[in-house]
Amino acid sequence: MSLSDDLALAHALADAAGAAIRPFFRARFDTDYKADTSPVTEADRAAEAAIRAILERERPADGIIGEEYGAVREEAERVWILDPIDGTKSFIAGRPIFGSLIALTTGGWPVLGIIDQPIAKERWAGAAGQATTHNGHVVKTRACRELSQAILASTGPQYFPHPTGEAFAHLARDCRDTVWGGDCYNYGLVASGHIDIVVEAGLKLHDIAALVPVVEGAGGRMCDWQGDPLTDTSDGKVIALGDPARLDDVLEALHEGHHHHH
Amino acid sequence: MSLSDDLALAHALADAAGAAIRPFFRARFDTDYKADTSPVTEADRAAEAAIRAILERERPADGIIGEEYGAVREEAERVWILDPIDGTKSFIAGRPIFGSLIALTTGGWPVLGIIDQPIAKERWAGAAGQATTHNGHVVKTRACRELSQAILASTGPQYFPHPTGEAFAHLARDCRDTVWGGDCYNYGLVASGHIDIVVEAGLKLHDIAALVPVVEGAGGRMCDWQGDPLTDTSDGKVIALGDPARLDDVLEALHEGHHHHH
Repeated sequence: MSLSDDLALAHALADAAGAAIRPFFRARFDTDYKADTSPVTEADRAAEAAIRAILERERPADGIIGEEYGAVREEAERVWILDPIDGTKSFIAGRPIFGSLIALTTGGWPVLGIIDQPIAKERWAGAAGQATTHNGHVVKTRACRELSQAILASTGPQYFPHPTGEAFAHLARDCRDTVWGGDCYNYGLVASGHIDIVVEAGLKLHDIAALVPVVEGAGGRMCDWQGDPLTDTSDGKVIALGDPARLDDVLEALHEGHHHHH
Repeated sequence: MSLSDDLALAHALADAAGAAIRPFFRARFDTDYKADTSPVTEADRAAEAAIRAILERERPADGIIGEEYGAVREEAERVWILDPIDGTKSFIAGRPIFGSLIALTTGGWPVLGIIDQPIAKERWAGAAGQATTHNGHVVKTRACRELSQAILASTGPQYFPHPTGEAFAHLARDCRDTVWGGDCYNYGLVASGHIDIVVEAGLKLHDIAALVPVVEGAGGRMCDWQGDPLTDTSDGKVIALGDPARLDDVLEALHEGHHHHH
C-alpha cells in the first residue's frame, strides 16, 4: 500500500463523512451527552459508521480507533484514527467551522491527516514528506517574527483545567489577538497561514492525530506544552505553531503563566 | 419611502459590502490598530466606503453613523448605522463567521437590520412588522424550556470587563453548553433557532442596531442586562434570547453571578 493510495482512500473517507453529516446540519437530530458531558449526535455516529464501512472493506487488516465506536485491531502496525465531528458543539450550534478528522498512523506515528469541513467544503490534507493542501492547492504557514504580532486561537476557556487557563492567559497577553472557538478548523487556518498559534488542553488522540501531518506538512510544528512531539501517550496539551521559531517564546510564556500562578 | 424600499436598498448595500470584502478574505491586506487596540483593515474601509457611496446617492437626506468613517447628519429622523465588518479579528484569522451589519433607525429605533456573511453567502434580514429571513426563507427562534437545555454563545472572555465575566460564568454554568467566537453570526443563529442565548458586554451602537430587528422579527428578544430595551444610550451589555420566556432566568443568573463576586 503506497502513501498515495492511502491518501486517495482518506479523501474518499472524508467524502463519505461529509455526505453523512450534511443532511443533519441545522436540521433536527438527537443529541446524547456522554459521561464527560460532551455531546454526540446522530451525525457523529452516521459519519463514523460510513467511514468504518469503507475501511473494513478496503483495509481489512488495518486497525481503527474512532471517537464514537471504539477500537478494533488497535495493535496493528497501521491504525486509522477517526473523529467524525470534531467540534460537535459548534455543529449543534449551526456553525460551519467543525470538521471531520481522519488520520493514519504507522507504528504509532501519524503519516496522513485530513481536516474536512463539509459545509464550507474546505479540506486540508497532509501526508509525510508531502506539502499540505487546502482544496487541492499547496498551502504554507506564515512567518511570525515576534509573539506580539501573533494571532492566537483556542476553542474555549472552559477546556483549560486549572491552572492551565492561567498559563494560556499569560500567553494571550503576549500575543496580538486571541480568537475563540474553532476546534480543528483553527489548525487548518494555521496551515494556510492565517492563524499563528493554537494552544489547547484536554485533547484526545482522535482530536490530535490528523492535525499533525496537516500543520507540519505546511511548515509548522506541533508539540506538547513541554515542546515534545505528540504521541499516543501525550497528556492532551497541544501547541500548533505556524512559525516553529516561536516555540521557545510560547513555552516561556506558558510556563511563566503557570509559575506566576503558584 | 416605504420600509420595503428601504429593505431592498439594504440588500443592495449588503451586496456592495460583500463585493468589497471578498477580495480581501484570506489575502494580504494592511491592518491598523485603533486606540482601543481593535483592528481595522482595508476591507473594513472599502466595504463602508462602498455602502456610503450608495447611501449618499440614494438617500441623501438620511444620516449615517459608521464604525470606520464616523457620523454625518446624525440628527436626522432616519439614520443608517453601519459596521462593515463585525468580527474583524475573525476576518483577519480567515474564519467565515464575521458579518456586515446594516441597520436603519427612525427616531432612534432600529426598524431594519441585516447581518450578512459574504463568504458563506448567508444573509439574515429583519424589518419591523415582518418575519426575519435567512437567504430569503422565513426563520424562527426555537423554544427553550429551561436554562439547562440552552446553548449559550459569546465572542470571547476578553470582552467582559470585570466583574461582568463572573456574571457570565455564572450563567454559563446554568446552561448546557457555551460556544465561543462568532460575533454577529451568533445572533443570526439565534434567529434561525440553533443558538438559544447570546450574552455580551462592551458592544457599541453599530454592533447592536442591526441585530435587534433580525432577532425580534424571528420571535426572539433583545435587551440589556437589566431586561430593558436597547437604545442608543445603552451601556453595551446585551442579551439576545431565542425564547423570551427565559429572560428572568438569564437575568437572575447574571445578577447572582455578579452578587457572588462582591
